[in-house]
Amino acid sequence: MLKFRAIVEYDGTAYHGWQLQKGLPTVQGAMETALARILQTPTRVHGAGRTDAGVHATGQVAHFLGQWPHPVSKLQTGCNALLPRDIVIRGLEIAEDHFHARHSARSKTYAYRVSCGVHPSPLKRLYSWHVPFQLDVDAMAQAAGYLIGSHDFGAFGSPTDGTPATVREILHARWEENPDEQELLFTIAGTGFLRYMVRTIVGTLIMVGRGRLTPTEVRLALRSLDRTRVGPTAPPNGLCLVSVKYNDK
Amino acid sequence: MLKFRAIVEYDGTAYHGWQLQKGLPTVQGAMETALARILQTPTRVHGAGRTDAGVHATGQVAHFLGQWPHPVSKLQTGCNALLPRDIVIRGLEIAEDHFHARHSARSKTYAYRVSCGVHPSPLKRLYSWHVPFQLDVDAMAQAAGYLIGSHDFGAFGSPTDGTPATVREILHARWEENPDEQELLFTIAGTGFLRYMVRTIVGTLIMVGRGRLTPTEVRLALRSLDRTRVGPTAPPNGLCLVSVKYNDK
Repeated sequence: MLKFRAIVEYDGTAYHGWQLQKGLPTVQGAMETALARILQTPTRVHGAGRTDAGVHATGQVAHFLGQWPHPVSKLQTGCNALLPRDIVIRGLEIAEDHFHARHSARSKTYAYRVSCGVHPSPLKRLYSWHVPFQLDVDAMAQAAGYLIGSHDFGAFGSPTDGTPATVREILHARWEENPDEQELLFTIAGTGFLRYMVRTIVGTLIMVGRGRLTPTEVRLALRSLDRTRVGPTAPPNGLCLVSVKYNDK
Repeated sequence: MLKFRAIVEYDGTAYHGWQLQKGLPTVQGAMETALARILQTPTRVHGAGRTDAGVHATGQVAHFLGQWPHPVSKLQTGCNALLPRDIVIRGLEIAEDHFHARHSARSKTYAYRVSCGVHPSPLKRLYSWHVPFQLDVDAMAQAAGYLIGSHDFGAFGSPTDGTPATVREILHARWEENPDEQELLFTIAGTGFLRYMVRTIVGTLIMVGRGRLTPTEVRLALRSLDRTRVGPTAPPNGLCLVSVKYNDK
């Protein structure tokens, strides 16, 4: 058996998230169906991040085991031909035996797109959150700065791994303005994330941008571990898993 | 009766083009349905450009007549609330009596997006044409230059207005590279366009980029008026009607 490591891009609009759910379309399910057909045996696919319903990815990483006597590129091409058009394997290679898409991950980077025009844009509606308010980006950047480092993020989400630990380390978090497109792009990297954590951070920072919370209140809310003191969870369609880093690359 | 002038953005994915067709979803049909409800009378909507099935717009212009005793902004808000999420009226104002969205138009600008990665991108699939080949952008720009000015574009499309005339004037036509996004953006402005003309120009210029046609061959094909000498019609989803210019603005 060989272990394969795939980089996967998908449009999450039509899926109930990455993780397999009985009777519902999921990205993991679509990949397992395609791989089972091409490898002619049931195949379990392990993803680095369990993206929620409606969340996108340009750089999800997944691993699976399989027997494949042909070139790896033929497995990639064949699998892409079987996958629906909203999922593509962008890269495929043979991994080390000990590689695990989730456990070996050193950090993950997410991007969140906010569109700022007065009216919602039909062409951006699937890939951004429309926030039709004047936003104070400097205050949003200041509040984002307070999240960098190791903190207990209990106020911002719940663990996904079955353990009660809610301490996570944020490596960077920044806002970029794209005035031509009337867009803001939030990029955040961390060693791990709680469930809904990125979307709750975005929802909280937008509250700061609107003047409903101060950056200092965000710092105090983080320390309080109190979910009622942070903002709402931002919608899933603005979020995209951009990349996963490992020790080897 | 007042005459209204609207700027309309839409995602053409779900529509059989702008123009009304019995029993098929069209953008004009969706707008007429919303306006009939809010104005409480059947309302004809006239668009500046009859975009084809699957083509998008960020700056389509349309006009219609109606009685509306309230502020114009309330008509816009009300109409947007009734329209599906893939159509938005971005601007609405009262027009001069003689204004006609199509007949008064002085020029139109279209954009065509080409995505160039090895693999098709799920997140771009609805809004670009995936061309997985090395493209010679300089040659494409040179060939595009031969199209600027007044020419008989009979080789590139057919008239939509019932007259046999196929002379049109192109004001500018240029390619921009966006290497970060692995994208090419083609922008073309003209006083008028034949049916399929922009998409056939793009299909022809991509043939130039791939080395299948030389810029000189494009110039000769234009002069020949022979449709068999130009490239294929590029798919609709890469095309977007960006703006329509009038004498007043």
